[in-house]
Amino acid sequence: MSWTLTAADLPDLARGATLLGTGGGGDPYIGQMLVQQVLGDRGITILDPDELADDLFVIPTAQMGAPTVMVEKIPAGTEPLLALRTLEDHLGRKAQATMPIECGGINSMIPLIVAAESGLPVVDADGMGRAFPELSMETFAVYGVHGSPLALAGERGETVIIDTGADNRQMESFARAVTIKLGGVGHIAEYAMTGADVRRTAVPRTLSMALALGRAIREARESHRSPFEAIAETLSTTLYAHVRELHVGKVIDVERRTTEGFARGRAIIDAGVEPGTDNARTSEPVEIAFQNENLTAYRGGELLAIVPDLICVVDHETAEPITTEGLRYGQRVRVLGISTPDLMRTPEALDTFGPSAFGLTEPFVPVERLGGVPVTHAPTERS
Amino acid sequence: MSWTLTAADLPDLARGATLLGTGGGGDPYIGQMLVQQVLGDRGITILDPDELADDLFVIPTAQMGAPTVMVEKIPAGTEPLLALRTLEDHLGRKAQATMPIECGGINSMIPLIVAAESGLPVVDADGMGRAFPELSMETFAVYGVHGSPLALAGERGETVIIDTGADNRQMESFARAVTIKLGGVGHIAEYAMTGADVRRTAVPRTLSMALALGRAIREARESHRSPFEAIAETLSTTLYAHVRELHVGKVIDVERRTTEGFARGRAIIDAGVEPGTDNARTSEPVEIAFQNENLTAYRGGELLAIVPDLICVVDHETAEPITTEGLRYGQRVRVLGISTPDLMRTPEALDTFGPSAFGLTEPFVPVERLGGVPVTHAPTERS
Repeated sequence: MSWTLTAADLPDLARGATLLGTGGGGDPYIGQMLVQQVLGDRGITILDPDELADDLFVIPTAQMGAPTVMVEKIPAGTEPLLALRTLEDHLGRKAQATMPIECGGINSMIPLIVAAESGLPVVDADGMGRAFPELSMETFAVYGVHGSPLALAGERGETVIIDTGADNRQMESFARAVTIKLGGVGHIAEYAMTGADVRRTAVPRTLSMALALGRAIREARESHRSPFEAIAETLSTTLYAHVRELHVGKVIDVERRTTEGFARGRAIIDAGVEPGTDNARTSEPVEIAFQNENLTAYRGGELLAIVPDLICVVDHETAEPITTEGLRYGQRVRVLGISTPDLMRTPEALDTFGPSAFGLTEPFVPVERLGGVPVTHAPTERS
Repeated sequence: MSWTLTAADLPDLARGATLLGTGGGGDPYIGQMLVQQVLGDRGITILDPDELADDLFVIPTAQMGAPTVMVEKIPAGTEPLLALRTLEDHLGRKAQATMPIECGGINSMIPLIVAAESGLPVVDADGMGRAFPELSMETFAVYGVHGSPLALAGERGETVIIDTGADNRQMESFARAVTIKLGGVGHIAEYAMTGADVRRTAVPRTLSMALALGRAIREARESHRSPFEAIAETLSTTLYAHVRELHVGKVIDVERRTTEGFARGRAIIDAGVEPGTDNARTSEPVEIAFQNENLTAYRGGELLAIVPDLICVVDHETAEPITTEGLRYGQRVRVLGISTPDLMRTPEALDTFGPSAFGLTEPFVPVERLGGVPVTHAPTERS
């Protein structure tokens, strides 16, 4: 069912989108401010994917760049709509809705800026079901929608239109190269498609899921319930069936570098208490590797979770999600593993955004078959 | 007066264009082969700039990339016309002629490939009057024609349209970034303009000048006359008034690296005989610095010539021009300095492609006011 999003929803949406950003996706806070500024007390119509007309013309919009740069280089706010208008002009067809390509992080907000500025509705779906670092890593692409032509806009009104046909990786590589020349952040419109394409290729209702997650975490805190149980409860009615607590501990090392337009690195989280028990652990610390988003969680040689399943680092008490650029020595955190929907675990999906797409040699293993503790119990002792 | 160029003209044109390439511009030999293949025994109509209709719509075409890569990465031949067609589609207007942006090096040939494939005529003019390494370094730009929108095409049919408004340097930076992702070579259409714009902003008759130079060098060799006097004689009726012999000697060191999409480096040419005399020199060697093209020639602390004047390294006997990627230890060479036309020496022109545009701190000094020996005398003793 379609519904109306207002400025009052934005803080919850930002919190949920940061969780789904799995460490990356860019901090949605700046995007939230931009939406609030433009939206005022109006509302944005959010369209349910099941109710779209087959021929509705949808142009998704997004920001691209390294999250480490995004937090320092504030957009003017006009770039995403310029990207959409540039693609409309190129295609000779007006968009009837916009949509996120990525529901995690700031890209949950960019289509809302476009909607607030243009009056277009936003489709409640995306192509990642979380955040991924590259434009080719889309369920849209997995199931046959081309990213090209892509329109890219810069803060001084520069525009670039990229058409690499069916080659979404080459599209990503060109757009990344231009984004670096723009100082590390660009705004894009790509994966133009019909309502029928959305239903066939998108991860449905991820915008409303991000909002529900953020709201559940807040309400649990306000009523002194466990925000972790609230997360598990919220996801239990979605395509994200399994929530696992992988680790509790203290951040003792963060290595981070911005190279080739990405934030890459790793974080070490020391052992705290045994998940689900009061026992102090003597086990090895957990290491999380990331390329914008968290890719793997290992305890010594033991795999705990691997992309495209979600690896989320959150505050150990409040469940406030922590991005890779927000990781600091001494933070006490829990590491959650969340299963991705089945349409993101097919062989063709894993080719596009599974471990091998990131140069990892490990095969994908579903998080529910690894060693995490299901989050359905009482919360564990705070470490 | 308009004239017809045939395949028989191509070797002379290539030789002259290599001389005007001032070490860069890319070796025109591969371009020549591509033109011959498409052209067969037909002709290409070359339009004199003075005879263009004011509203004739001209789209220049070119190759971009590092010359060191161009000689190894052979184009399919279809890319330049694809770039032109992409820009036509974007602008909603058909080109009535194409034109070089650069008469030096391979870019003397690229518009001929387009002409041979499409039947379009070619305007006898360009925007550099030689070769320069960057797309913003155009007399077109100096006198107010924008390079944007630019269309770029890759060998697998990829296309990119770049629009940076009046900012030609940002256009260059985006196009360079994409060209690097294409493996180092891309084909472009840019600086779309009218016949009136051509007359106002282009360096006129540089294609016919390149052909005349190449022919004069060949005919002098065939009749055992000095090819250096033939060069000076040919240029005496053009806007390139002064030809100076700067040095005669042996290449003793070449340092060359391909970075950021450019071929950069320097060559050291040992002292041979005193220019214009039979006296063996005991002076210091001459050092030539280049970024794709030769930028400066110095003997110790003495400036001999500086960009945008032409610094041409040629075989000491045959006057065959030698590109920076063709420089080898042991070659016996002469270094010529040739004055650029006055429209390339105005303050605004020097801002765009004078020394400071290359990060050099020296001011521009016309080659005719420096220490070279005028080439109007009998040829000097062969070293």
